Amino acid sequence: MSNTFGTRFRLTTFGESHGKAIGGVIDGCPAGITIDESLIASEMHRRHIGDNATKRHEPDRVEILSGVYEGVSLGTPIAFVINNIDTQSKDYDTLSDCFRPGHADYTYEMRYGRRDPRGGGRASGRETATRVVAGAIAKMVLKTKGITFCTEVVENSNPPADDSCGGIIGCTINGVNAGVGDPVFDKLNARLAAAMMSIPSAIGFEMGAGFAASRMTGSEFRDCWNEDFTTQTNHCGGIQGGISNGMPIMFRVAFHPVTTVCQPTECIDHNGNLHTITPQGRHDRNHIPRTAVVVEAMAALTIVDFIV
Amino acid sequence: MSNTFGTRFRLTTFGESHGKAIGGVIDGCPAGITIDESLIASEMHRRHIGDNATKRHEPDRVEILSGVYEGVSLGTPIAFVINNIDTQSKDYDTLSDCFRPGHADYTYEMRYGRRDPRGGGRASGRETATRVVAGAIAKMVLKTKGITFCTEVVENSNPPADDSCGGIIGCTINGVNAGVGDPVFDKLNARLAAAMMSIPSAIGFEMGAGFAASRMTGSEFRDCWNEDFTTQTNHCGGIQGGISNGMPIMFRVAFHPVTTVCQPTECIDHNGNLHTITPQGRHDRNHIPRTAVVVEAMAALTIVDFIV
Amino acid sequence: MSNTFGTRFRLTTFGESHGKAIGGVIDGCPAGITIDESLIASEMHRRHIGDNATKRHEPDRVEILSGVYEGVSLGTPIAFVINNIDTQSKDYDTLSDCFRPGHADYTYEMRYGRRDPRGGGRASGRETATRVVAGAIAKMVLKTKGITFCTEVVENSNPPADDSCGGIIGCTINGVNAGVGDPVFDKLNARLAAAMMSIPSAIGFEMGAGFAASRMTGSEFRDCWNEDFTTQTNHCGGIQGGISNGMPIMFRVAFHPVTTVCQPTECIDHNGNLHTITPQGRHDRNHIPRTAVVVEAMAALTIVDFIV
Amino acid sequence: MSNTFGTRFRLTTFGESHGKAIGGVIDGCPAGITIDESLIASEMHRRHIGDNATKRHEPDRVEILSGVYEGVSLGTPIAFVINNIDTQSKDYDTLSDCFRPGHADYTYEMRYGRRDPRGGGRASGRETATRVVAGAIAKMVLKTKGITFCTEVVENSNPPADDSCGGIIGCTINGVNAGVGDPVFDKLNARLAAAMMSIPSAIGFEMGAGFAASRMTGSEFRDCWNEDFTTQTNHCGGIQGGISNGMPIMFRVAFHPVTTVCQPTECIDHNGNLHTITPQGRHDRNHIPRTAVVVEAMAALTIVDFIV
Repeated sequence: MSNTFGTRFRLTTFGESHGKAIGGVIDGCPAGITIDESLIASEMHRRHIGDNATKRHEPDRVEILSGVYEGVSLGTPIAFVINNIDTQSKDYDTLSDCFRPGHADYTYEMRYGRRDPRGGGRASGRETATRVVAGAIAKMVLKTKGITFCTEVVENSNPPADDSCGGIIGCTINGVNAGVGDPVFDKLNARLAAAMMSIPSAIGFEMGAGFAASRMTGSEFRDCWNEDFTTQTNHCGGIQGGISNGMPIMFRVAFHPVTTVCQPTECIDHNGNLHTITPQGRHDRNHIPRTAVVVEAMAALTIVDFIV
Repeated sequence: MSNTFGTRFRLTTFGESHGKAIGGVIDGCPAGITIDESLIASEMHRRHIGDNATKRHEPDRVEILSGVYEGVSLGTPIAFVINNIDTQSKDYDTLSDCFRPGHADYTYEMRYGRRDPRGGGRASGRETATRVVAGAIAKMVLKTKGITFCTEVVENSNPPADDSCGGIIGCTINGVNAGVGDPVFDKLNARLAAAMMSIPSAIGFEMGAGFAASRMTGSEFRDCWNEDFTTQTNHCGGIQGGISNGMPIMFRVAFHPVTTVCQPTECIDHNGNLHTITPQGRHDRNHIPRTAVVVEAMAALTIVDFIV
Repeated sequence: MSNTFGTRFRLTTFGESHGKAIGGVIDGCPAGITIDESLIASEMHRRHIGDNATKRHEPDRVEILSGVYEGVSLGTPIAFVINNIDTQSKDYDTLSDCFRPGHADYTYEMRYGRRDPRGGGRASGRETATRVVAGAIAKMVLKTKGITFCTEVVENSNPPADDSCGGIIGCTINGVNAGVGDPVFDKLNARLAAAMMSIPSAIGFEMGAGFAASRMTGSEFRDCWNEDFTTQTNHCGGIQGGISNGMPIMFRVAFHPVTTVCQPTECIDHNGNLHTITPQGRHDRNHIPRTAVVVEAMAALTIVDFIV
Repeated sequence: MSNTFGTRFRLTTFGESHGKAIGGVIDGCPAGITIDESLIASEMHRRHIGDNATKRHEPDRVEILSGVYEGVSLGTPIAFVINNIDTQSKDYDTLSDCFRPGHADYTYEMRYGRRDPRGGGRASGRETATRVVAGAIAKMVLKTKGITFCTEVVENSNPPADDSCGGIIGCTINGVNAGVGDPVFDKLNARLAAAMMSIPSAIGFEMGAGFAASRMTGSEFRDCWNEDFTTQTNHCGGIQGGISNGMPIMFRVAFHPVTTVCQPTECIDHNGNLHTITPQGRHDRNHIPRTAVVVEAMAALTIVDFIV
């Protein structure tokens, strides 16, 4: 019971990778926002490309079911669905009774007592498509307030033959006024961290100078004032005491490589017996480029939740 | 409005550093737990020591006001207070109309339009005392389920003369069964990240292999099975798909140095004029050793919220 | 931002009366529950019949999109949609720029600055269809615990020609063990009251002896013990101190008549000018019989939220 | 886990009747509100008087611990405590191992497995003192927006000798603009109903014409427009579709009599044996007059939560 993100601009998502559809409901989008479906489509396109290791031809047409009337939001819930029309469940038949290493197969089974074994089910990276849709709508709200997002791949490599690689994505949020954030537990940096770590394969998060700041002295680290209330450096990443200070908000997210590689792999069955299989299906060898738009979407959903 | 942590075992804290008292209310502590006040005191002692840079002689006697009858929890809210009896507000008089660099002075003023300038007010590290009390009670609940916590200072240094230093704290949680965590947004790692990043001066978080995992290949990173459902490595830090896998849960938190150092410092006033002051008062030159118990407390509060 | 009911078994609904679809997402349904789609259909049928004043031939086919695999719940979100296929929006064209008396036209416009004028939009009684679907699933969960629901029309009349009538519905919940409810603010009776008053046209709620209890003495009102912990009377309606006592839970809900009647009606436009119209479209003259299943659904959603 | 009321202006209360203290924490009170402690005291006085059947000389001095600096709210949590200094626990010794009829003794024991038997513990009407404090602060916020509250005892009687009586309290809220409320589940009337039914001994709630509306026709019930957007009648009680329409908000709450009367009473012990006792201690024979301020407080807490 945790498929809801946010408290004011609240996204609830649903759907298994190979079920009928995935989708979401946004509750709390202000009335009067022009909903640009072409922007949603272009964000979905950013998620679809990348290194094209994912062979699924996801058309991923997003259909809005409610909350928008004559192209403008009503203030009522905006529901959207994406039908799963290109599923190849037979590729996954061999996985239904064994757990892959490095995957959520085993943990979902321990959590729920059962799971949809097809394509990772709910644990599939496919659920991030719903984040991108909602993130696009969040951006439409935030654009009216001058807030924009920029991501870049900070570290990435070519995966070796038959293997996969991870990387680091940096994100900068511009235009957030000073005064956004809710201490002491819903600090803006705490909420951003939770948002980012909820993305599949995220394994590290840092604000501003990040881990390097742990090796700086206080006099090096502190960001000195300019007379216009900007600061000369931005080691803190734009947040102090959990509240934005008006500088760009900057953070980085580390992602581990996708753990399914098309090599012989030892799985374990319910009885604890190991079996060697060679995974079929569509698996990203380098998911970093296409994950950038997911990072942006979660950043937008985090910010909009403080601001609506 | 964010002074509540958790949804089932729910801590609400209050208090400014130099007000009458700080404290908290725990709602959702199960009935029937023996509340060991000496354990609370010993955890408070762990937070008090360290390098003793903090000259405040905080006796920090914790008084429980409700929810405990004849030494056992009732299931009703457990309220506790710590009176602020050793406050030296006059040390802070010079700060009431200027904003220090690297502090939350400016951001609180932007957020609320006013603040208590004495000793950092609500933004003071002093509020972590309430986290330690609640964390101690959370540990009493978790001990009945065999869950224990261990922290160590992974990186730290001696601060140079008249300056401060940061560091990295590692935490291991043992005894959490497989199956704990709520995908897709309240993943156990996402909740731990938020908990840790809410600690004053936290600036980075990583699970398991962390940022280093972004440079590994998939075949290196994935944790291979043993026949007893443990894994040969623990690169993921004990969590897959947002759910515990039964291995130790391991993470690290990076902290930046405290930004108040007893050196000439340029503050800015409401009109944008810079003033050089030399801070007085009590300031930690090395807060890392005493922060370990705060990390543990937040870890305990995170885990107990999934388990009660 | 209030289209979510419940905290553990959490229903989020969406949809305007004459939009593409209405529907909902249930988050928190336990895994392993057999989802009987024929029971959903029969509950929808109970909502459809009644006095047939509603001429809409709502087939209201419910399609489940996620969360169910091979007929059994997965523990992941259960999303469902009902397409709006029999909408006659032209009947409502005359209403787009005026506010009917006794309706939510004006209040929605004041709340959101705009609204979907077709058929009441989000304020239409049509949204209760989603409550019935979710209530049916809640009943499947509760049946496994021996909890059942029974409603009856306590007061109702034949509406006079060309007019509408209200009534009172009584509900009894059997099989709830003693000990359910969360004082002091989420008392079981408080949650039931909120659930019932959220139903369109609900205007009163009472537990057990209800308003009549305000005229009893303490010695008359108090429910005396039998030796098996049942009570000789049930004036309190099965709840004491906000917690169930093991007796049947009994309450009544009063509903006002539907305010659209096919008579000349004075509407008001944005400028405060009154206009006499004669409403067309489909309007219930007696909605009480078909509302009983909605009362039951909300009761089931309330109870299941305490019990899962 | 339910001792929190509200989502934006959020009150968390604690305390057993005969423990050290009762109190609360308000999170979300806006910064800049003048906190008038004499108004809190006068509201507490309204709760203290009445028929004086309660012989406890509750001075009930309210001490504010945080969130207020120089008489003005900071935006940080406002914590307050009321020490329990006039407790006569020995009066309740005979009750520790038996359950009174009509009380929460049995249900608390079933819910939590234990309870504080002194004076009703957490289930005592004493907890309403914390609601009155928070309600007074809510009123200070709402007064700045022109919103005021008025209650009257609508029905009440003199209790017969050695017995107790109930009654009905009416409440009118003036000054709420049109547009307040969050359909479809957090309708303003639904939230008011929950707030009122959470008050000890509340047993019925109705808006506007209430139960009588169930016997009216649609053409009688609907409130016809005046040209200034007020209505000629107020049968709906000022709320349509869950949203305020700008008319006075009007509702009534029915309360059952206090069930402890100083007459021989059959209690039941854990083994199901009945024992006749004659209750001692302080018990209200007519709690209606002093409950009016509690009704007002909960109304204020409900409204402020939508408006801050």
